[in-house]
Amino acid sequence: MTERLVVIGGDAAGMSAASQARRRKPDLEIVAFERSGWASYSACGEPYHIAGYVDPLERLVARKPKRFREMDIDLRLHHEVVGIDIHRRTVTVRNAEGSFDMGFDHLMVATGARPVRPEIVGVDLDGVHQLRTLDDARTLRGLAESNRGSAVVIGGGYIGLEAAEAFLAQGWTVTVVTSGKSVLEQSLDPDMGSLVVEGMEQQGIRVLTDDRVRCINGTTRIDSVGCENETITADVAILGLGSEPEVELAEQAGIAIGETGAIAVDDRQSTMVEGIWSAGDCAETIHRVTRTPANFHLGTVANKTGRVAGINIGGGSARFPGVLGTAITKVCDTEVASTGVRGHPAIESVSADAEGKTTAGYWPGAAPIKIRATVERNTGRLIGAQIVGGPASAKRIDVFATAIWNGMTAEDLSWTDLAYAPPFSGVWDLIHIAARRAAEACR
Amino acid sequence: MTERLVVIGGDAAGMSAASQARRRKPDLEIVAFERSGWASYSACGEPYHIAGYVDPLERLVARKPKRFREMDIDLRLHHEVVGIDIHRRTVTVRNAEGSFDMGFDHLMVATGARPVRPEIVGVDLDGVHQLRTLDDARTLRGLAESNRGSAVVIGGGYIGLEAAEAFLAQGWTVTVVTSGKSVLEQSLDPDMGSLVVEGMEQQGIRVLTDDRVRCINGTTRIDSVGCENETITADVAILGLGSEPEVELAEQAGIAIGETGAIAVDDRQSTMVEGIWSAGDCAETIHRVTRTPANFHLGTVANKTGRVAGINIGGGSARFPGVLGTAITKVCDTEVASTGVRGHPAIESVSADAEGKTTAGYWPGAAPIKIRATVERNTGRLIGAQIVGGPASAKRIDVFATAIWNGMTAEDLSWTDLAYAPPFSGVWDLIHIAARRAAEACR
Repeated sequence: MTERLVVIGGDAAGMSAASQARRRKPDLEIVAFERSGWASYSACGEPYHIAGYVDPLERLVARKPKRFREMDIDLRLHHEVVGIDIHRRTVTVRNAEGSFDMGFDHLMVATGARPVRPEIVGVDLDGVHQLRTLDDARTLRGLAESNRGSAVVIGGGYIGLEAAEAFLAQGWTVTVVTSGKSVLEQSLDPDMGSLVVEGMEQQGIRVLTDDRVRCINGTTRIDSVGCENETITADVAILGLGSEPEVELAEQAGIAIGETGAIAVDDRQSTMVEGIWSAGDCAETIHRVTRTPANFHLGTVANKTGRVAGINIGGGSARFPGVLGTAITKVCDTEVASTGVRGHPAIESVSADAEGKTTAGYWPGAAPIKIRATVERNTGRLIGAQIVGGPASAKRIDVFATAIWNGMTAEDLSWTDLAYAPPFSGVWDLIHIAARRAAEACR
Repeated sequence: MTERLVVIGGDAAGMSAASQARRRKPDLEIVAFERSGWASYSACGEPYHIAGYVDPLERLVARKPKRFREMDIDLRLHHEVVGIDIHRRTVTVRNAEGSFDMGFDHLMVATGARPVRPEIVGVDLDGVHQLRTLDDARTLRGLAESNRGSAVVIGGGYIGLEAAEAFLAQGWTVTVVTSGKSVLEQSLDPDMGSLVVEGMEQQGIRVLTDDRVRCINGTTRIDSVGCENETITADVAILGLGSEPEVELAEQAGIAIGETGAIAVDDRQSTMVEGIWSAGDCAETIHRVTRTPANFHLGTVANKTGRVAGINIGGGSARFPGVLGTAITKVCDTEVASTGVRGHPAIESVSADAEGKTTAGYWPGAAPIKIRATVERNTGRLIGAQIVGGPASAKRIDVFATAIWNGMTAEDLSWTDLAYAPPFSGVWDLIHIAARRAAEACR
C-alpha cells in the first residue's frame, strides 16, 4: 500500500515539509489540508499590501496551488482538520460538503499561531480586526482605502507597528497604545524602543506607552477605544498583542505540549508520537543561547523547521540546530533588529553601546545608528544584540547572529575582518566598537 | 631618561599605534614624522571628493593635528624619515630646513604603500596621475572641474574604478583599460566582474578588458593613450594598477622583509628587530584561510594592526588574529564585495551561486544580487565569498566574513538564524541558499 503523509496547515512549515518529503520520496502520497482559501503565503508582507506598497494581494503568495499540484502534492484548500486519532492514525476533516476521515502514515502538524485576543469589553465589535491571514489583509486594505479616519493599534509588537505604518501611509490618524514602557519590548530594551517611538512620532503616529486599553466602545460598530487616561475616537482598532501557538488539535489528540505551550518536538521535528511531526509557529524549538525551549512565530523558523521535518519524513536525516530569535523590521523610516537575548535569569550579562552613522561620517547619505551588544560577563561570550537606526542599519544584525551562533566572544568579534568603504561604514564598523566596549565591560 | 617612540608615517597605522601607546604610557615621548602635509586621513574617501560628493577635502581628515597635540603626540608634518640605524637606534629626518637625527626606544614603521607605476613610455607626462594622497585628490578634483574631457583609467582595481566613477560624475568621457579578463580581479571571478562591467557600461563608462596600455602619447602633456587595438584621446590618465608596500627604508636598515615583499612581523606587529614595529600597508599579516603571509592595503587592516602595535608598545598585550582580505566598494550603482579566497593551490575548492533580489521579490525596491560561496571540498568549510548587486547587497559580505572567521561550514551557515522581513531579504536569505548549494556541491 502507498505510504501517505497528511499535512495539517498549508503555510510555510507545512508546505516546506511537503516539498522536501516529495523530493526524497517520489512515491509518497501527500495530502495537505488548509482551512483557509490560501496556502504558502507571506504573512510578513501583509502590512505592505494594506499600505498600498504591494499589489495585488496575490503577490504575497510564494507558491501557487498549481505548483504543488505539479509536484504531486494534493493541496486541499477550505479543508479544516478537526480531529486527530493517534491510535487509529487518522484525521477527521471538515469541508463545505461535510466531513470525512483519512488515514496517515506520517502526520505533519503545522497549525501555526493565532493573534492574542484581549479579554476586554467590545473586542468583538465590528471594526476590531486582527491581522494574520491574507483575508485579514484584504479586509484591512479595503477599510484603509474606503475611509480616512482614526485607527488605534492595541499593542506595540511587530505586526502592530507595521499595521500602524500602513494606516498612516493610507492617510489615517494613527494611535498605538501599549502597556509596555516602550514598543517592541520582546526585542528591544525600553531606551532602544524609545528611538523607534521618536521616529514614529516624527512621522505623525501617536504612541501611548505605559497605558492600557480598558474597553472598546460602540453599539455594533467601534466608535472609540477607552484607555486608562483618555478615550480615543476610533473607526478601526487593530490587535497587535502578538500571537500564541495553535495547539488545541494536538493537545486533544494527546500529543505532548512543552513548557512554552507549543508542541514538544526533538531536533528532528518529531513529536513524542512516532510518525507525527510538527514545525513552525505551533512547535517548540531550542534557543541556542539559553539552551532552553523557545517558541518563536517567525517565517524563517517555520521554513527551516518545516524543511527539517520534510527531510526526515522523506527518509533523510536532518537536525534543526536551534534559533536565536533574530527579528527585523522597518517602522516608517526607522529600521530595527535584534538577535539572541537581552538578558536571562541564568546568565549574568552586561551590555555596551556604539552610536554613530551607517556610513563614513562625511558620506552624503550618513544616517544615525545605535547598536547594543550584550555579553555573558564571566566569559565575554556574545548573547544578544539590538540595532535601531536609519536606512542600511538593521540587516547588520546578521553579523551578530552569525557571531552568537558560533559562540564567539565580543573580543574576537571586535577584530573580525568586516568590510569597509565610505558608503558602507566607518573604518571601524560600529559592530567592532560595540563589541570592543562589551568586551571591556567584562573586565 | 624619558622613553621615546618614533613613528614613521602619520596615517592610519602610525597614528593608531601612537594613540594606543599614549593611552597606556602617559610618560612616553611620542614623535610622529609624516612627509606630506596631511595626517590621519581617509584615502578611501578621495574618489568621492573628486566626484564632488564630499566637500571640502578636509572632511577626509579623521583626526586633526590639534587632536594629536592634545594627546601630547608630537606630530611633525613635512618631515621625511630618510634613514633608520637599527644599531644606534636613530632615524635621520629631512625637512625644509635640513636634516637631523633622532634616537628612539621604540620605532613604528608605518610607511604605507604607493601606487604601482607601469613601465611604459609617457607615464611621466603631465596629465598622468596617481591617486593616493590627499594632494593627489585635490589635484584631480581641480582637473575634473576645470575641463570636461576624456579620462582614461589604466587598470581595473578598486581605486581605478572609483576614480572612473568620479570623473563620470563630473561629466567626463571615461574609459577603463585593463589587461585582465574583467575588473576587480583581485576580488572577483571574471564572470562576477562582468556584472560590474555591465553596470559601468550602463552608466556610460567604456571598459576595455583583455587589453593593455602600450604607451601614453604627448609632448609635455598627455594627448592620447595607446592600447593594443586602438588609441584613445585622453586629457587625463589615472593609474589604477594597485599599490605596492613602501619598504625601502626598512630594507636598507636591515629589517627583514617577508615573502610577500612587505615587512615581516609577528602577530604582535613586532619586526625581527626588537623594539621596531610595523603595521598597515607596509607590513605582512597572516591570512586566516590559508594561514600563509599576506599583504593587504586596506584601511581596516591598517587601523587594526596599528592598534595592536600601539597596545604592545604601550606595555599591553595584543595579538593580531589575521585577515580575510574583506573588501567592498560601490561602482556607479553596482555594489561589490568579497572576503576570503576565490581558490588556492593548496585547497581543493568548489563554489556555488545564488541569484535573486535584495528584498522579498514583491517589495518595491527589490534589486538584483548575486552571491558566490566557495568551500573546501573535503571539509565543507567556507573559504571565500563574492557579492555583486544593487543597493543593500554588498555589506552582506560581513556574514561570510564572520562565518569564515569562525571556520564555519557552508552547511552550518545554511541554517543560521539570519534576519528576515520583506524590505530586507527573502525568507531564505540568499546567503542561506548559496551556502546550502555549496554544501551540496561537496557531496
